[in-house]
Amino acid sequence: MMEGLFTANNVWMMVCTALVFFMHTGFAFLEIGLTRQKNTINILFKNIFIITVGLLLYYLIGFNLMYPGDFNGYIGSIVPGIGAPENGMTPDYADGGYTWWTDFLFQGMFAATAATIVSGAVAERMKIGAFMIFTVIYVGIVYPIAGSWKWGGGFLDELGFYDFAGSTLVHSVGGWAALVAVYLLGSRIGKFKDGKPQAIPGHNIPLATAGVLILWLGWFGFNGGSVLSADPELTSLTLVTTCLAAAAGGVVASLVSFLRYKNLDLTMFLNGILGGLVGITAGADVMTPESAIIIGAIAGALIVFAVSFIDAIKLDDPVGAIAVHLICGIWGTLAVGIFSTNPDHTFVAQLIGVACYAAFCIVTSFLIIFTLKKTIGIRVSEKEELEGLDGHEHGMDAYADFRMNEH
Amino acid sequence: MMEGLFTANNVWMMVCTALVFFMHTGFAFLEIGLTRQKNTINILFKNIFIITVGLLLYYLIGFNLMYPGDFNGYIGSIVPGIGAPENGMTPDYADGGYTWWTDFLFQGMFAATAATIVSGAVAERMKIGAFMIFTVIYVGIVYPIAGSWKWGGGFLDELGFYDFAGSTLVHSVGGWAALVAVYLLGSRIGKFKDGKPQAIPGHNIPLATAGVLILWLGWFGFNGGSVLSADPELTSLTLVTTCLAAAAGGVVASLVSFLRYKNLDLTMFLNGILGGLVGITAGADVMTPESAIIIGAIAGALIVFAVSFIDAIKLDDPVGAIAVHLICGIWGTLAVGIFSTNPDHTFVAQLIGVACYAAFCIVTSFLIIFTLKKTIGIRVSEKEELEGLDGHEHGMDAYADFRMNEH
Amino acid sequence: MMEGLFTANNVWMMVCTALVFFMHTGFAFLEIGLTRQKNTINILFKNIFIITVGLLLYYLIGFNLMYPGDFNGYIGSIVPGIGAPENGMTPDYADGGYTWWTDFLFQGMFAATAATIVSGAVAERMKIGAFMIFTVIYVGIVYPIAGSWKWGGGFLDELGFYDFAGSTLVHSVGGWAALVAVYLLGSRIGKFKDGKPQAIPGHNIPLATAGVLILWLGWFGFNGGSVLSADPELTSLTLVTTCLAAAAGGVVASLVSFLRYKNLDLTMFLNGILGGLVGITAGADVMTPESAIIIGAIAGALIVFAVSFIDAIKLDDPVGAIAVHLICGIWGTLAVGIFSTNPDHTFVAQLIGVACYAAFCIVTSFLIIFTLKKTIGIRVSEKEELEGLDGHEHGMDAYADFRMNEH
Repeated sequence: MMEGLFTANNVWMMVCTALVFFMHTGFAFLEIGLTRQKNTINILFKNIFIITVGLLLYYLIGFNLMYPGDFNGYIGSIVPGIGAPENGMTPDYADGGYTWWTDFLFQGMFAATAATIVSGAVAERMKIGAFMIFTVIYVGIVYPIAGSWKWGGGFLDELGFYDFAGSTLVHSVGGWAALVAVYLLGSRIGKFKDGKPQAIPGHNIPLATAGVLILWLGWFGFNGGSVLSADPELTSLTLVTTCLAAAAGGVVASLVSFLRYKNLDLTMFLNGILGGLVGITAGADVMTPESAIIIGAIAGALIVFAVSFIDAIKLDDPVGAIAVHLICGIWGTLAVGIFSTNPDHTFVAQLIGVACYAAFCIVTSFLIIFTLKKTIGIRVSEKEELEGLDGHEHGMDAYADFRMNEH
Repeated sequence: MMEGLFTANNVWMMVCTALVFFMHTGFAFLEIGLTRQKNTINILFKNIFIITVGLLLYYLIGFNLMYPGDFNGYIGSIVPGIGAPENGMTPDYADGGYTWWTDFLFQGMFAATAATIVSGAVAERMKIGAFMIFTVIYVGIVYPIAGSWKWGGGFLDELGFYDFAGSTLVHSVGGWAALVAVYLLGSRIGKFKDGKPQAIPGHNIPLATAGVLILWLGWFGFNGGSVLSADPELTSLTLVTTCLAAAAGGVVASLVSFLRYKNLDLTMFLNGILGGLVGITAGADVMTPESAIIIGAIAGALIVFAVSFIDAIKLDDPVGAIAVHLICGIWGTLAVGIFSTNPDHTFVAQLIGVACYAAFCIVTSFLIIFTLKKTIGIRVSEKEELEGLDGHEHGMDAYADFRMNEH
Repeated sequence: MMEGLFTANNVWMMVCTALVFFMHTGFAFLEIGLTRQKNTINILFKNIFIITVGLLLYYLIGFNLMYPGDFNGYIGSIVPGIGAPENGMTPDYADGGYTWWTDFLFQGMFAATAATIVSGAVAERMKIGAFMIFTVIYVGIVYPIAGSWKWGGGFLDELGFYDFAGSTLVHSVGGWAALVAVYLLGSRIGKFKDGKPQAIPGHNIPLATAGVLILWLGWFGFNGGSVLSADPELTSLTLVTTCLAAAAGGVVASLVSFLRYKNLDLTMFLNGILGGLVGITAGADVMTPESAIIIGAIAGALIVFAVSFIDAIKLDDPVGAIAVHLICGIWGTLAVGIFSTNPDHTFVAQLIGVACYAAFCIVTSFLIIFTLKKTIGIRVSEKEELEGLDGHEHGMDAYADFRMNEH
């Protein structure tokens, strides 16, 4: 392969790695923006913990467990390091797309995302120690094993299941754990009164909005980098489908929400964008722009109904993580079976993939969180929840100079 | 063309596309930062609306209307899609610069900017429904037609008019509409007392400052990508002239403001940077660094005088959009006729270009906004304006946990 | 050299330039976040001043003073401009890495950083006029001379001293001046009571956290661009070592802090990340991932002890700039002598380098700041300090609509 092309490929992959890293700023902004100021430090601490510990774990365990080379198709082995050959790079790896170092870092940035999704769902009431233990196990072991099934060349890859950039492998893997965690944790004090869901308004909507825009920006790298080279046709198609799905998701969510509630709801608009992004992620490289708009639009509509359904079954998900990452992740994965331009992709294979990940993630996250619940406990005390986790767990305020409303 | 070079070109164009997309975060931060907290959700909603709907409209109408290929030079036709040939990319398009998909997305990110400029000028008092209708027409139809005259190879291109990255085609097109809108809307309640302009302080200067820095960052892509390839000499010259003009604009605006008002005015510093950026945009690829500094410096001085002039004629532009985007856009376009290193560029051609865009944009924006004023109305009720648009139009607060001052 | 490779190299360098520029947003967020709201405008003004004036000074003086070509090895001469040959680019410069224009801009973005480090340390009490004069001299003259000794091919380069991306040339150069400035300025009113350090909580921890994440992101360019080409092996190794050191620094700082103070301290976590980043910067391209983790981990531990040591000797550094940039900068520079994979690097040469920069920076910054102290004064009045610099120096509030606590 020509040196110029290999270098250009690697540049693109490094840019995408940087963009995916930046998504953690987006997640942090979104999550604190949609919750109350008294739990802000706690959320920021969790996010910083996830990205740093996630990266170290991916170095120690994850990378080689997820990309084990030849393996039994179900579970690899734990080998620390980044698996690079002697000379530090393999020019012919992934058709010359990029170096092993870049590969490690790009994949490592993905690894922490699953835990971040859970973080949003359990915000404002989960003990930080329990969350940290969960994160270590889920990011360190569950995520790489799940990933190896498809991206590591495991049994689901053999079977024809397709997930381009992780509607299922990243977003649903996080989403299922979020669902389990929310179920085991219970709702925040005051979320349901006489069986009716109460709005608990977020405290910093500008940051939440910026968070969504940063996430969208990061998705240029999340999907664009999943091409695993800078192939001009595939990368640029991927960016187009990604952006059109995001736009369609936002517009449709906002429209459906307006028709249903007669309100120009910014939060729904934002979650619709995220839903569109999650939805297109499984097949961003195998869609026409028209299909991308349809997939995004349906994801946007799904968001509105999913949010109210989750409320109706009395699950308390402060940031809408389950609707965005789980529901739209499933939808996007199935949509590959419907809209893909690649005739090898089938609805049945997609359905099997979704089911396998559902089973594995529900079981593992339940085992971890239920064990934590029965041992060290997963929920903060009522007093701590009412006064805020920031003072109790971290001894500091997010906005020391500002006067706050009581609630 | 060599595959490595084509790939490198396309990578650069995708990076620039991402950077221009990020500018919308910058615009949102700047606009909310310089206005009052009670209208924050409204501004964020508008910005999210613009970027999502703008992209979809550019797919449905704008791209082919703006880049029609062979046409009469004045107006193309409405053909949905992104105009890509059968195989999805044209390696020899734009001298091998990038794929059609990248082209669509890069140009699509520009399209929404014009409306964003207007959004800032009409902040805190315009009905959101009216603004949305205006945006759809202006971004969907007016902007692409105006753009086709030069970038689509239309009559102004034939005539020798030059506008590298849009001092006129983007910034003045937005600026003229901002001027018309502000005129038709009237000033905010309390802006003028006994004929004297009153300061209405912005509520979040850190975000406004970050907004300007993000916009500057985005301009790396806005101007750097307008080379339409990664040509090393042109792209790197463009980044140098862009950054030097921004720096000079900020320093001179702050200095003039200090000499005039004996105050180290951060807002003026920020708007000076933006003025320098808008000013260099028409000719960033045909300037020496020295010329870039002069153009930026003059733009910076212009900002200070323009802001007080606009106040003096009793126009209420909360964020200084007219001074930044219209006045400096005109200045930058004319400056090409003075400083360009390309002898084909003439002052007369630049003047004709400015005049044509002035006429077209004033007429079209007046027609749209005046019609809206006479039908559904463009201004919110006095009660709504006083209480804030957030509660009335969106039913939510930007900062629910914070205590606010009354005003 | 092939056109494709040269273009890919230049694209990477431009991307890195943009990322380093973005670091100024990170610095601004970090600095305002960790201080009180009443001094926010002042800090933002300083940051905007630094980046704009820094860039112009680098054009007028710095670039040719720092990269003088053949010179005596100690001090070059002042020649305005960017030193580009006639045709605007040199394809064979730096082994074809990038154009002169890109070189100028990348290095120019670095230049302002030293002053930014000082800005954080002197926050909340230094006269803005004095700070501006200091910045002009330090960024315009001291930094480029110091830089020429190594990066310009001067006597320390001859001697075998190594500093890949500036643990010493950027961070310690800023850190020494910060130390001198803090010493000459004295502590903020209320920082020490009966000899004991008092916590003065920062007012916006979400922005401080975002600042650290943005700085980390920017470090992709700061270190990745210091390869001076897009060489796939070196750039990707550099990104891996950079990110692993950051992660290790954060985790260890947080852990040591938890063991010592039984508190999950977010600020320490953040400063640990920065310490890891500063620490790896001197040798990011000559480390194994394992060494990078060790260097970062030690930097993280150093942060915790350095912060309390600086408190103990009654120096008041509101944002921890001395611990992060000076202590970890020294550590990182020495670590090259211990861990480098390049046998030419020696501990002695590193030690000599650290000592030379210490001597030069302490002397020059003392001369400048002491002279300012004895002439125009460097400290604001007690009244101004208590009421906040924003109102006195800039006549505006950062958060006009919010109600604040008195302190």
